[in-house]
Amino acid sequence: MTPEQQAEIDEQRAQSHQTRRATVPGMEEHLYTAHPVLDHGFIRVIDYMGDDAAICQAARVSYGRGTKAVSNDAGLIRYLMRHWHSTPFEMCEVKLHVKLPVFVARQWIRHRTANVNEYSARYSILDREFYIPAKCDLAAQSVVNNQGRGEALSGEEAARVLDWLRDDSNRAYDHYEAMISDTAPDGTPQAGLARELARMNLPANVYTQWYWKVDLHNLFHFLRLRADPHAQMEIRVYAEAMCRIVADWVPLAYAAFEDYRLGGASLSAKGVECVRRMVAGEEVTLENSGMSAGEWREFRRVVG
Amino acid sequence: MTPEQQAEIDEQRAQSHQTRRATVPGMEEHLYTAHPVLDHGFIRVIDYMGDDAAICQAARVSYGRGTKAVSNDAGLIRYLMRHWHSTPFEMCEVKLHVKLPVFVARQWIRHRTANVNEYSARYSILDREFYIPAKCDLAAQSVVNNQGRGEALSGEEAARVLDWLRDDSNRAYDHYEAMISDTAPDGTPQAGLARELARMNLPANVYTQWYWKVDLHNLFHFLRLRADPHAQMEIRVYAEAMCRIVADWVPLAYAAFEDYRLGGASLSAKGVECVRRMVAGEEVTLENSGMSAGEWREFRRVVG
Amino acid sequence: MTPEQQAEIDEQRAQSHQTRRATVPGMEEHLYTAHPVLDHGFIRVIDYMGDDAAICQAARVSYGRGTKAVSNDAGLIRYLMRHWHSTPFEMCEVKLHVKLPVFVARQWIRHRTANVNEYSARYSILDREFYIPAKCDLAAQSVVNNQGRGEALSGEEAARVLDWLRDDSNRAYDHYEAMISDTAPDGTPQAGLARELARMNLPANVYTQWYWKVDLHNLFHFLRLRADPHAQMEIRVYAEAMCRIVADWVPLAYAAFEDYRLGGASLSAKGVECVRRMVAGEEVTLENSGMSAGEWREFRRVVG
Amino acid sequence: MTPEQQAEIDEQRAQSHQTRRATVPGMEEHLYTAHPVLDHGFIRVIDYMGDDAAICQAARVSYGRGTKAVSNDAGLIRYLMRHWHSTPFEMCEVKLHVKLPVFVARQWIRHRTANVNEYSARYSILDREFYIPAKCDLAAQSVVNNQGRGEALSGEEAARVLDWLRDDSNRAYDHYEAMISDTAPDGTPQAGLARELARMNLPANVYTQWYWKVDLHNLFHFLRLRADPHAQMEIRVYAEAMCRIVADWVPLAYAAFEDYRLGGASLSAKGVECVRRMVAGEEVTLENSGMSAGEWREFRRVVG
Repeated sequence: MTPEQQAEIDEQRAQSHQTRRATVPGMEEHLYTAHPVLDHGFIRVIDYMGDDAAICQAARVSYGRGTKAVSNDAGLIRYLMRHWHSTPFEMCEVKLHVKLPVFVARQWIRHRTANVNEYSARYSILDREFYIPAKCDLAAQSVVNNQGRGEALSGEEAARVLDWLRDDSNRAYDHYEAMISDTAPDGTPQAGLARELARMNLPANVYTQWYWKVDLHNLFHFLRLRADPHAQMEIRVYAEAMCRIVADWVPLAYAAFEDYRLGGASLSAKGVECVRRMVAGEEVTLENSGMSAGEWREFRRVVG
Repeated sequence: MTPEQQAEIDEQRAQSHQTRRATVPGMEEHLYTAHPVLDHGFIRVIDYMGDDAAICQAARVSYGRGTKAVSNDAGLIRYLMRHWHSTPFEMCEVKLHVKLPVFVARQWIRHRTANVNEYSARYSILDREFYIPAKCDLAAQSVVNNQGRGEALSGEEAARVLDWLRDDSNRAYDHYEAMISDTAPDGTPQAGLARELARMNLPANVYTQWYWKVDLHNLFHFLRLRADPHAQMEIRVYAEAMCRIVADWVPLAYAAFEDYRLGGASLSAKGVECVRRMVAGEEVTLENSGMSAGEWREFRRVVG
Repeated sequence: MTPEQQAEIDEQRAQSHQTRRATVPGMEEHLYTAHPVLDHGFIRVIDYMGDDAAICQAARVSYGRGTKAVSNDAGLIRYLMRHWHSTPFEMCEVKLHVKLPVFVARQWIRHRTANVNEYSARYSILDREFYIPAKCDLAAQSVVNNQGRGEALSGEEAARVLDWLRDDSNRAYDHYEAMISDTAPDGTPQAGLARELARMNLPANVYTQWYWKVDLHNLFHFLRLRADPHAQMEIRVYAEAMCRIVADWVPLAYAAFEDYRLGGASLSAKGVECVRRMVAGEEVTLENSGMSAGEWREFRRVVG
Repeated sequence: MTPEQQAEIDEQRAQSHQTRRATVPGMEEHLYTAHPVLDHGFIRVIDYMGDDAAICQAARVSYGRGTKAVSNDAGLIRYLMRHWHSTPFEMCEVKLHVKLPVFVARQWIRHRTANVNEYSARYSILDREFYIPAKCDLAAQSVVNNQGRGEALSGEEAARVLDWLRDDSNRAYDHYEAMISDTAPDGTPQAGLARELARMNLPANVYTQWYWKVDLHNLFHFLRLRADPHAQMEIRVYAEAMCRIVADWVPLAYAAFEDYRLGGASLSAKGVECVRRMVAGEEVTLENSGMSAGEWREFRRVVG
């Protein structure tokens, strides 16, 4: 972050206005601050709408914030979450400024129910910033999961990978700069390649940034998939940073989300049947479960 | 509105919090107040996110509110509107509480890109409130437009219509009440019909209410269609009430919307060709325009 | 259904074309036929896109239909369903023509991720067709569930309700007809009220119809909520009719849906913990479960 | 395309089934064939639903294909397009298999109302295929449009750019292969980097592929923006290839789209006023138009 950028942030944080709207002190504290993620990325809260009470207010279509006790709100929110009611959670909204590597952005954008304004590399010049993993995060292809990673690479192999990632990123950026420059390598003037073309030389670990706005229901859906241990680590760390923010924003809804989604589990009809037999004292095995080996493995992870 | 409801609203309006978020004084003034629409309906602003500057900030993916002059913001917003950029306008969001007749709600809900929590007539009991048009609004079927209305009905015919609307509404509600009651007409106890069934007896002019949350881009799309003179009057009055609110919320964006959408016009390729010929001094008529009679009529309305 | 409508349907069913597209014999059999639902409603398949193989083909982004055995497709589809992959199921699409009471349509339309063209009562005249429940379906308000129904009404109370529903529907329609008529009750000419206004007199049990197009993922989501025993019976019967159609269309996907969604269950983190303790032989009760009474009741229904 | 892929395509094209569904001979001809785009990309129609008649059928919510003449269908479709009716066009759907460079995919995916399954570089290994522009397409940054391109580069500058693009792509891919290999450069065994990490070294001109499914309304919206002369050439060529396919699929709807959208123009309220003055014979200039210089330039392009 440049001093100019930090100054802009500081200026925003110094402002204070009167409002009649629902306000959450914990979220006010987060506003505008850049929470670091990965080596050059961050997440910043730019704006938010609503709080735990707003969820209940919408569910009740009420005229005011209600005179209901907080305990009632907690119960209602848990009920709504347990029964998959989505519209009351849609009544809260958050807007974030995120800086993230392009390959993470490509996964992220698959969640379509959000609003996005991305920094345009047709219009502007990208910075020389690339995600270079920490050595300990350089993992081998998983041998059990085709789309996951396994053990960390050995030191020598990791060093070789890091050299390639660093060198190729820098060379790509050198040429990117040289292509859009109005000066040729020999110092004579040149036209300079259009930015919309030059950008194609940059690798997927280059950083981009965007404004991302999403409602709480869709954010929870994102977090359930991306804060999951099976998500790629480089997007999971963003999801985890958001989890901490959401816990400060709507603590009752977040607690229900943790209980019913993050920490919960889904059972198939076969799984329900097996649980009933196990609770009744029967010995249930892969062979008499009716499940495939993969399903059984996942089922055992749930029932312990 | 009952005194209890008014007290809840007053209590909300009396609150004031400190916030670091973008705040719009004109919108703060609207907050929670019920703007009357039709005979029993209203629109209330429950919450909002963003302002004109937030649109520009997102379009620029900037770190702060920027040091750009307001004149620059106006120019940028006009540019974005003219070139059909939608994502910067999606960065503003508004939440409304709306009370409206069911037949209006049925048109309204066809706009799918919004969040809705409607008062549940499975769960709760509807009030005895029906939209009864003003006599001057009782218009005949249009003879030129299959889905529109023409001249006002004569006094006698209008009076007959009003009697039917009032009588049928009241009788339907009497029976609705009697069906869900735990007392039979003869005073003996009865089970009482489930509310989810009893509601089917109520006509489409009964009032319902909902929380409706939408981003500015999709709200503009709604307003373009529903504030249009061809929209049914009973939904248009809601759209017009929202236009007045939006003008106070994001004055630059609303001015651009008025210029490029509400007051603008679309020309077909044939229409562009005809305009060019007319500007060049040629006499263009239905016959040599290449248009159908309907297109020509609409084209003439544009070029005068 | 009028003889003219039946003739149109028969004509469509008599046609046969050659196509290179994926085709499902079981679905071809359904095409255009009106499956009756409630007293005057129906569901008709108008078109469909894709089959079980198309789901796998999209998941694999493959060039052809693949040489994989059906058993592989079944395993892949079960894997995708178990892990909440949604996009491969979105690759199948179905278009239905549905006739349904307005109060059912109002619930249905809350599922926003579908395409809808509804019969316009601004433009056209509605038929004299109202949903009048069978006597056995007239149930009392539930005493345990605020948004459900309980026991059937007694014969006398039910008879009274049916009389009101029938009389009010017919009177409302008589007046609807009289209002839009160009002849006054005394036989003299009148202007006739605009259809967009007259429709407001019709109750919520009047039938409407629409074309509804949805992808398989979103259809499954709809069916999970609406084929559920807690859904209102009048929409559940439509969902059940669709379940039978989908089972003929994509049998592998439907079987996975039945196992993982319709017949499955969700456990909270607390529920997972309780299951583990029960499987380990511990006596778990409401008191030592950490759950509320409502959660515990639902949990016991799962584990038996 | 490999011989195996071509064989899969040929096998699909050789199949023929009987169907009762709407079928379009021109679209059957396209089915499965790969239409080349750019140097290694393509577009293939995988499936389609509906035709021109289906648009009218949905707009009329009719029971059959109707007995209306084609001329009536053309008029109705033009009316629907002119008045921005969107839902009837949503009743047609098309599924495409597209191979495209990543930087094009990143623009494309911003259109959110479509279904996508992309080839997973977490799961699979990408091919050594990169978009290398033709020399004549290497253009300089535009001096009038910040997000566009201007004149072609000189031969020498173009040659330098091409060398960098080719060399960097190949080196990046060499290292990608070496990182995921189970053999180190010196021939000894190594673990091999996880594919989800190795992919980050590949530049944005590498090819990816996806299945993309969209309804006709949203496809038209995409084509209006991306077949526009201001769109980046590398995505415009895909849009143009789709335009040719759509013209064969729904010729009436495509003709209306060409007339009202591709070839049409939008006027602001100020623009309408200026047109009226010009048609009335007045001399209108930038100075007395009330427009900014940019608006005026665009306005002159419309009225000639």
